[in-house]
Amino acid sequence: MKKKIVILGSTGSVGKQALTVLSDQEKLFELVGISGWEDTNLLQEQILKYKPKIAVVKNEYFAKKLKNSLNKNLNIKIMWGIRGLIELVTLGEIDLVIMAITGIASLIPTYEAIKNNKNIALASKEAMVVAGEILMSEAKSRNLKIIPVDSEHNAIFQCIGNEPKENIAKIILTASGGSLYHLTESTLNKVTVEEALNHPNWDMGKKISIDSATLMNKGLEVIEARWFFDIPADRIDVVIHPQSYIHSMVQFIDGTIQAQMSEHDMKLPIQHAMTYPKRIRNNYPVIDLVKIKQLTFKNPNFKKFPCLKLAYKAVEMGGTMPAVLNAANEIAVNAFLNEKIKIIEIPSIIQAVMKSHKIKTNPLISDILDADYWARQEALSLCIKSK
Amino acid sequence: MKKKIVILGSTGSVGKQALTVLSDQEKLFELVGISGWEDTNLLQEQILKYKPKIAVVKNEYFAKKLKNSLNKNLNIKIMWGIRGLIELVTLGEIDLVIMAITGIASLIPTYEAIKNNKNIALASKEAMVVAGEILMSEAKSRNLKIIPVDSEHNAIFQCIGNEPKENIAKIILTASGGSLYHLTESTLNKVTVEEALNHPNWDMGKKISIDSATLMNKGLEVIEARWFFDIPADRIDVVIHPQSYIHSMVQFIDGTIQAQMSEHDMKLPIQHAMTYPKRIRNNYPVIDLVKIKQLTFKNPNFKKFPCLKLAYKAVEMGGTMPAVLNAANEIAVNAFLNEKIKIIEIPSIIQAVMKSHKIKTNPLISDILDADYWARQEALSLCIKSK
Repeated sequence: MKKKIVILGSTGSVGKQALTVLSDQEKLFELVGISGWEDTNLLQEQILKYKPKIAVVKNEYFAKKLKNSLNKNLNIKIMWGIRGLIELVTLGEIDLVIMAITGIASLIPTYEAIKNNKNIALASKEAMVVAGEILMSEAKSRNLKIIPVDSEHNAIFQCIGNEPKENIAKIILTASGGSLYHLTESTLNKVTVEEALNHPNWDMGKKISIDSATLMNKGLEVIEARWFFDIPADRIDVVIHPQSYIHSMVQFIDGTIQAQMSEHDMKLPIQHAMTYPKRIRNNYPVIDLVKIKQLTFKNPNFKKFPCLKLAYKAVEMGGTMPAVLNAANEIAVNAFLNEKIKIIEIPSIIQAVMKSHKIKTNPLISDILDADYWARQEALSLCIKSK
Repeated sequence: MKKKIVILGSTGSVGKQALTVLSDQEKLFELVGISGWEDTNLLQEQILKYKPKIAVVKNEYFAKKLKNSLNKNLNIKIMWGIRGLIELVTLGEIDLVIMAITGIASLIPTYEAIKNNKNIALASKEAMVVAGEILMSEAKSRNLKIIPVDSEHNAIFQCIGNEPKENIAKIILTASGGSLYHLTESTLNKVTVEEALNHPNWDMGKKISIDSATLMNKGLEVIEARWFFDIPADRIDVVIHPQSYIHSMVQFIDGTIQAQMSEHDMKLPIQHAMTYPKRIRNNYPVIDLVKIKQLTFKNPNFKKFPCLKLAYKAVEMGGTMPAVLNAANEIAVNAFLNEKIKIIEIPSIIQAVMKSHKIKTNPLISDILDADYWARQEALSLCIKSK
């Protein structure tokens, strides 16, 4: 029987690749629904090609626009907004929700999917960063699997396999180092948007490329790993591995380290998460270590890249603080992309927002959304002042 | 309840380290018996320190010698010869046999242990090389576990975890390259015993150090892996990894590679095999990739090191041929160690013996022992001629 899936964020980078995996393995999957916020042109294409029964867009305006672009006889239901997303992920027939919406917008649909007993392939970092404790405890109590799609967390998931949590001594997250790792502290000051966007190994969205350059991406991943695998952050290490072939590692209590390697191709972790617990043969590229010649490793420079330290601090402080870190970062990165601030101001803004935040411990989802909203306002006003 | 174990070959390198693991984890194990062929001094020490109830030596002469060296009131049974070994491994109370006898001598006790439903931690390469098909099928039909102790095969065993065999695309055995990897073909001609014994990463016995220098060690491991994991040899690759931190890898059908890493310390795979299916915390060293800085990879040079190709050929031809390869190699290595032949003559002698062997397919254990005996005579006469 085919696995019935929905893809939230089908017009984004991960969503598009999930559709490729789906058509490469068409015997395994049935696409029930997709969502893409504003890009109705691409949505139209995807609807014609992959024939989902449901599509969700941002609001009524985009719903009408999409409807008008499609043949009237086409059997498709078009919904909109957060209510449309919730309806999509809670359909009775769905076996797997692929959550690939970027930003905090992924939180509510992820939470609702879990509440409705759906297994999730989770690509949306932010949901786990801001509300990992709530999501994982809800999933655990329902015996659901949340399978990470992020290459690092997917690697860790694979390295752990069926080992009990007690066997894990340490998680070792690898980081490429991003586009600016080689720069000195003084030259970091002058980095342009274009330079910062030039990621060495992966072709990614703008926001994540900047996060990669500031190492905040790795900081968010530390927080994500903390909840995904229920391991305190002080047992999660980050190591710079510029070639990015080892996607992450797990060190066990007996001294064994398991490392997962594969090509720089997001289709690999996406397929793994989609087909789990099975492995399925594919035609995607396989790494050849002899051609690669060498894998190298360095310590991260916390001084040059304070965002990573801030992330450790946020998860240690707990409660609503990771949501504040994430929101302030999003605003600051956006300000940098719009050339309102320098890249080195990103961590200063986040730090200032964190400093003035009153943590709410054991937060509800609504507390997290409040903290997120508050931190965005705070960060915005700091970005304006800075300019 | 403590696991009751016997260690065959307790005076050898692996055996001694197994005793260290045993005393480091004394709450987990009870040592029932040990065997050490001629080294009664060390056996005496081990008996006094680890207090086994049974010891096995080569023959009646060594049994008397050992007995005389011990206090008469000591409660120990001393046995000898192959019959003593068989009695030791078939004791009803034994939970795990640690098989660490070097050479073909391990075959009969391993076979008898399996026939008597014993789980085995197998360090003795030769048993699996010459009779892997028989041993594994006997073990499988009894639902026994044969856990590899060799660092490479132990790594593969860990990388596979609970994955079904159908998920394995390839096994990638790593090789340090041995002491002579950097030499040109012409300088290989003049290599002294001392140079060949100087292994870069591991402190091992003489025979295995020479096998490592000729890459025959890796060839024997290919054959071993073929039977341990039931994978055809054409899906077992060898890659030179001079740092020897990745002990081996498994490539799965979906493009994931799992690599197992740990320090250069045989106690790690020994402990893993002894405590399996549990992992137990220890104080052995853990690798630090940042200190190591880099891991490198190269293709093996089959032309410079023909022994590796001969091993692939032997396992492909099957039947008694791997036993012939192994026996001829043992004689040739011994001749080199005694300065009777040059190191580059080792593969020529093996090849000549293989050429004149009439393969017996689907051999019984007795056929394998016959082929082993025949090949030794053949190789010996060639070594004498060569001189």
